[in-house]
Amino acid sequence: MDYQQIIERIYEEIKPYEQEGKQADYIPALARVNPDQFGLYLNLLSGESYQLGGYDTRFSIQSISKVFSLAIALSIKGKELWKRIGKEPSGTAFNSLVQLEYEHGIPRNPFINAGAIVLADVLLTELENPEEFFIQFVRALSGNEEIDYSSEVAQSEQSCSYLNASIAYLLKHHHNLNNRVEDVLHFYCMMCSVEMSCKDLAKAFTAFARSSEPFSHGGVELTTSRVKRINAIMQTCGFYDEAGEFSFLVGLPGKSGVGGGIVAIHPAKYSIAVWSPRLNERGNSIMGMKALELFTTMTSESIF
Amino acid sequence: MDYQQIIERIYEEIKPYEQEGKQADYIPALARVNPDQFGLYLNLLSGESYQLGGYDTRFSIQSISKVFSLAIALSIKGKELWKRIGKEPSGTAFNSLVQLEYEHGIPRNPFINAGAIVLADVLLTELENPEEFFIQFVRALSGNEEIDYSSEVAQSEQSCSYLNASIAYLLKHHHNLNNRVEDVLHFYCMMCSVEMSCKDLAKAFTAFARSSEPFSHGGVELTTSRVKRINAIMQTCGFYDEAGEFSFLVGLPGKSGVGGGIVAIHPAKYSIAVWSPRLNERGNSIMGMKALELFTTMTSESIF
Amino acid sequence: MDYQQIIERIYEEIKPYEQEGKQADYIPALARVNPDQFGLYLNLLSGESYQLGGYDTRFSIQSISKVFSLAIALSIKGKELWKRIGKEPSGTAFNSLVQLEYEHGIPRNPFINAGAIVLADVLLTELENPEEFFIQFVRALSGNEEIDYSSEVAQSEQSCSYLNASIAYLLKHHHNLNNRVEDVLHFYCMMCSVEMSCKDLAKAFTAFARSSEPFSHGGVELTTSRVKRINAIMQTCGFYDEAGEFSFLVGLPGKSGVGGGIVAIHPAKYSIAVWSPRLNERGNSIMGMKALELFTTMTSESIF
Amino acid sequence: MDYQQIIERIYEEIKPYEQEGKQADYIPALARVNPDQFGLYLNLLSGESYQLGGYDTRFSIQSISKVFSLAIALSIKGKELWKRIGKEPSGTAFNSLVQLEYEHGIPRNPFINAGAIVLADVLLTELENPEEFFIQFVRALSGNEEIDYSSEVAQSEQSCSYLNASIAYLLKHHHNLNNRVEDVLHFYCMMCSVEMSCKDLAKAFTAFARSSEPFSHGGVELTTSRVKRINAIMQTCGFYDEAGEFSFLVGLPGKSGVGGGIVAIHPAKYSIAVWSPRLNERGNSIMGMKALELFTTMTSESIF
Repeated sequence: MDYQQIIERIYEEIKPYEQEGKQADYIPALARVNPDQFGLYLNLLSGESYQLGGYDTRFSIQSISKVFSLAIALSIKGKELWKRIGKEPSGTAFNSLVQLEYEHGIPRNPFINAGAIVLADVLLTELENPEEFFIQFVRALSGNEEIDYSSEVAQSEQSCSYLNASIAYLLKHHHNLNNRVEDVLHFYCMMCSVEMSCKDLAKAFTAFARSSEPFSHGGVELTTSRVKRINAIMQTCGFYDEAGEFSFLVGLPGKSGVGGGIVAIHPAKYSIAVWSPRLNERGNSIMGMKALELFTTMTSESIF
Repeated sequence: MDYQQIIERIYEEIKPYEQEGKQADYIPALARVNPDQFGLYLNLLSGESYQLGGYDTRFSIQSISKVFSLAIALSIKGKELWKRIGKEPSGTAFNSLVQLEYEHGIPRNPFINAGAIVLADVLLTELENPEEFFIQFVRALSGNEEIDYSSEVAQSEQSCSYLNASIAYLLKHHHNLNNRVEDVLHFYCMMCSVEMSCKDLAKAFTAFARSSEPFSHGGVELTTSRVKRINAIMQTCGFYDEAGEFSFLVGLPGKSGVGGGIVAIHPAKYSIAVWSPRLNERGNSIMGMKALELFTTMTSESIF
Repeated sequence: MDYQQIIERIYEEIKPYEQEGKQADYIPALARVNPDQFGLYLNLLSGESYQLGGYDTRFSIQSISKVFSLAIALSIKGKELWKRIGKEPSGTAFNSLVQLEYEHGIPRNPFINAGAIVLADVLLTELENPEEFFIQFVRALSGNEEIDYSSEVAQSEQSCSYLNASIAYLLKHHHNLNNRVEDVLHFYCMMCSVEMSCKDLAKAFTAFARSSEPFSHGGVELTTSRVKRINAIMQTCGFYDEAGEFSFLVGLPGKSGVGGGIVAIHPAKYSIAVWSPRLNERGNSIMGMKALELFTTMTSESIF
Repeated sequence: MDYQQIIERIYEEIKPYEQEGKQADYIPALARVNPDQFGLYLNLLSGESYQLGGYDTRFSIQSISKVFSLAIALSIKGKELWKRIGKEPSGTAFNSLVQLEYEHGIPRNPFINAGAIVLADVLLTELENPEEFFIQFVRALSGNEEIDYSSEVAQSEQSCSYLNASIAYLLKHHHNLNNRVEDVLHFYCMMCSVEMSCKDLAKAFTAFARSSEPFSHGGVELTTSRVKRINAIMQTCGFYDEAGEFSFLVGLPGKSGVGGGIVAIHPAKYSIAVWSPRLNERGNSIMGMKALELFTTMTSESIF
C-alpha cells in the first residue's frame, strides 16, 4: 500500500468512532465548531505530501502553540530557561497547581499551562513586539502568510479562564513571572488562539523533523540539537496525563490541543497533522489519536 | 495569687523570650511596628478586668477578623453557609491551595485564607454596605467607636498578595465566588486591616464567652448556640497548622493574627487578649502563646 | 427535665435513624454483631449514673483503645513521646499514608492508625508484660475485672489488615518502629479487640473527666495536667476527618471506634458513653453521634 | 571518527567526573563494590561491537531487571496486564506510595517499584517455576549461560527493604497482589539481584532494538510490536523522576539500575550498556549518563 492508500484505509477504520466524544465547549467560539470534521496532512521530508478530508480547514491550535513559544524561548535563553521551567512529565493534568505549590513555582515542564505561562512571560520580556514576532514566526514556519490570531477566541478565553489566572498568580507569588499577570495571560491566550490547518501545521513541523537545513527566522534558529531537545520534551510531556499512552500507542513525539488538532513528527522522515474536534476525557482528539496509532502501525514507522 | 499577681508573674516568666522571632514584614506597615511590645487584657465575665503593658495600643488584627466575618455570615446564612465552606481542620497551612484543588473549591474551614475569602464574598452579596456594616459591628462588639480600618495596610496588603489572588481565582474557577475577585480581595484586605487593642479584643470577645445576654447588632445575633459553634471551630481550626499545639498547650478556643495578636475565651468565665509582634515560624506570637499557656496552667482554667 | 428524662427523650428522637448506616463488616466477628442495638451510660462526677438500653452489653472498643495506650505511653515517656508522634489534626482519614510519607514517618497524631501503631511500639519496648499490663490497666480504670481481649477479633483483624501492615512498614522504613512489625501489629490488634460495655467505658473515662483524685495504676498516673493534654488531643483529633464536625455538633472531647462506641467527657462534670453498631461513611456511629449532639443541646452542657 | 575512537574520546571527557557521587550503600553487598569502575559495550545490529574498560565485569542489574519481567508478563498476559498497571510517567520518585494510595493500588507504570512488584506477582502466578524460568530467559537473551542470581544481594535486600514491604502491603490492600507478600518480595529481590556485565546487557537488549528476527524463549516472544511498546515505556518511565532529563540529554529509550548500570537502545541500529557505580542524587550513574549523552551527541544518533 502506498501512503495515499494507507491514509484512506485509516479513514475507513476510524469512521465508526466519529460520533464519540465531544468538542471543547468552555468558550463559545470553540463550542460553535462543527464537531463532525476530520482532516489529515502528511508531509514527507523527501518532498511528497498526502492529504485527506478537511486538511485545509483552519482551527484553533490551542496548546500546540506551546511548541512554538518553547522554540522561541529556548533559542533566546538557552539553558537559562531551565532555571524557570522543568522538563519532567507532570504525572497528571489536574494536579498542575498542586505540583506548582509543592515545587515552589517551578512548572514541571513547558507544555503544562503553568510552564507555557512562564514561556509567555519570557517572550514578553525578551521580544520587542511579542505578538507581531510570534505570528510572523509561525507564518514563516508554515509558509502561509494568512495565518492569524483569532481575537474573538483569545478574548473569550481570557475572560473565563479563572484557573489560568490562579496559576499565574501562584507563579507571581513564587517570583516566577516578571510581567503583569494580565499582560502575560493576554499574550498566552493570543498564542493559543492562532488558527491553522492540518496543512499549515504539518508544514510548520517539518522544522522539528530535522529537515536538511535548520529553520531560522528573526534570530530564532532551530538547530538540530535544539530540535532534538524539543522533540524529547514532546515525547515525554506532549499529552498531559496521556503522554505515556500516546508514546505507547503511536510512538512519535507530538503535541495536541483542545481544538482537536494533533501534530507529530518522525525525525528525518515526516511530519503529520490530524484534526477532529471531538475529544476524549483527557482532552485529546479521539479520531486524531486513532488515526495516528493506525498510521504508525500500518507503516511500521514509529521511532521505537 | 490573684489575677493581677498572676499576669505580672507571667510577664516575668516570658521576658526571657522577648527577643525571639520576628514580626511579619511582608508589607511595610507591619514591618515598621516596634517589635518589642507586649500587652495583655483579661476580662472576667463577672465584671473585673486586669491589664498589663501595651494593652491599649492598637495593632493590625489581621486573621482575628475572620471570627467577626464568620459571626456575621453564619448569622445571615445559617446552615446554608456550610455548603460553601467546611468545618474540618486543614492539617497544614501551606497546603490550603492543594486541598482546595483536591476538594473542588470548598475551603476546609472558615479560618484558612480560602475560607475567609468566601466569607468576604458572602458579606459582599448579603450586606448593603459591607464595609460600613462590618466596622460598625466590630465597634459595637467592643464598645469602642474609634476602631477603624487602616487603608494603608489594606492597600499594601492587596497589592502584594499574589497568593490570595491565586486562591480567589481558584475559588472562582470552582464557582465558589459570586463577586468579582478584585472586589472580594479588597474587602477581605480591609477586614484584615482593622486595628484594635488587646482591650478592644477582649471586650469584643466577651460575646463569644457566652455573656449573660446575647449580643445583637443590625440583625446579627450571637445566640448561645451560634457562639458555641464558632468556639468549636476556633478550637479545632484557629491556629492553622498549630491548632493542635495551641489546644494542647493552652486548652482554650482562640484565634491568632500575624499582627501578633491572640484572643481566647473560656466559656462563661472570661475572655483574654494578648499581643506581641514577634512570631514563631508558624505565624503565631511567641510571647502571646507562652503567656496564654502560663495563664491556663497557673489558673488551672483551661476548658479541658 | 432531669437526666433520666433527657436520655429517654433522646432515645425517642434518634429512633427514626435506627436503620441508617451499617456496621463494620471487614472482619467476621464485627459483621456478626446484631446492628440494631443502642446503649447509653452517663456517669456524673457527683456520683449518680443514668443508663439506657444495652448499656451493659460488651462490644469491641477498637480505636477507643488508643486513648488508653496514649495515657500509658505519655505517662512513661513524657514529652519525649512527641518526638515520635505529632499532635495536629490529620485533615482527612484516607491520606494518613500520604502524610506519613511526606512527613518522614512521624504520624500526625496518636489517634490515627499510624500514631497508635507507634504507641503500641512504645508500650512493647517499655513494659515488661505489655498485654498483661494493658488489660489490667483498663480493668482498674473501669473497675471491672471481667474486661478482656477478644483473641478471635484480634486474630482476624491482624490477618486481614494489609493497610496497617503497609503503614507499619513505612514507619519501620523511617526508623520510627523499634520492634518487629509482626509483634507491633499483634499487640495493636489485641488492644483494639478489647470488649467493654458503655458502663465500663463511662466509668473508665471518669479519670479523664478530672475526678477528684488522679487515677494511678502500676506506675501510670493520670495527673490533671496529663489528662488535660489528652482531652485536648481528643478534641482536635478524636474523630478522624470528622473531628471538626463532632466538635461543632457535640462540643466535647471524645473518641470513637468502628465497633460503634463513642465516649466523651465534660471536664469536672461527667463522662458519657454511647454505642450503636451502624456507622456513617466516616466510620462513626450514627445514633451515637446524634445522641451526644442532642445531649449537649438539651443540657446546654458542652465545653464551649 | 569511528566508533572505537568515539568511545575512547568519551572516556577521556568523562574522566574528570569519576570521583563524583557515591555508590548505593543501603545493603552491604552493594556498598562493598569498588566505586571507581567504568565499563561500556556497544553492540551494532549490523554485527560489530565496541568495548571499553570493565565491560566484562558483572554487577547487580537491579531495576534493569524490570524490563525483562515486563517483557515476560506482557507476552503472557497481553493487554490484560494494563488493568493492573498503568503506563504513564509517575512524576516523581518519592511519591510512588502517595500515587498508589490516590490511585487505589494501580501502580503508575511497570518501572516504579510498585509496578515491578505487580510484575513479580504476575510471573509467580503464571509461571510454573518462576525463578528458573526468569534466569533462563535472561541467559538466552544475552547468550551467556553463566549469568545468575546473587542470593547474598537478594537476601540482604529483602531483609531491609521496609519500603518495598509497605508498597506490597498497600497493593495487597487494594487487591492488586494475588500471592503472599513474602513470596512476591522474595522473587522481586531475586530478579533485582541478577548480575550481568555491560556486554551481557548490550547483547540482551538487541532483542529490544528490533533485531532481524524476534527473540523467542519458552513461549515468550518479543515481537516487533511488543518491543516497540516496551521501548515507548522505557522512554517515558525508565529513569524515575529523571525520565524527562534522560530523554532530553540522551534521546534514547533506556533503563537504569542503582547498581550503576544503564542500558539504552536505538531501534534498528544498536544497543549500548554502560556501568559505573557512583550515582547522582536521583539514583542514576553519573558517568553512565554523561557517557550516553556524549555518545548520542557525537554520533548524532538519538531517536529524535
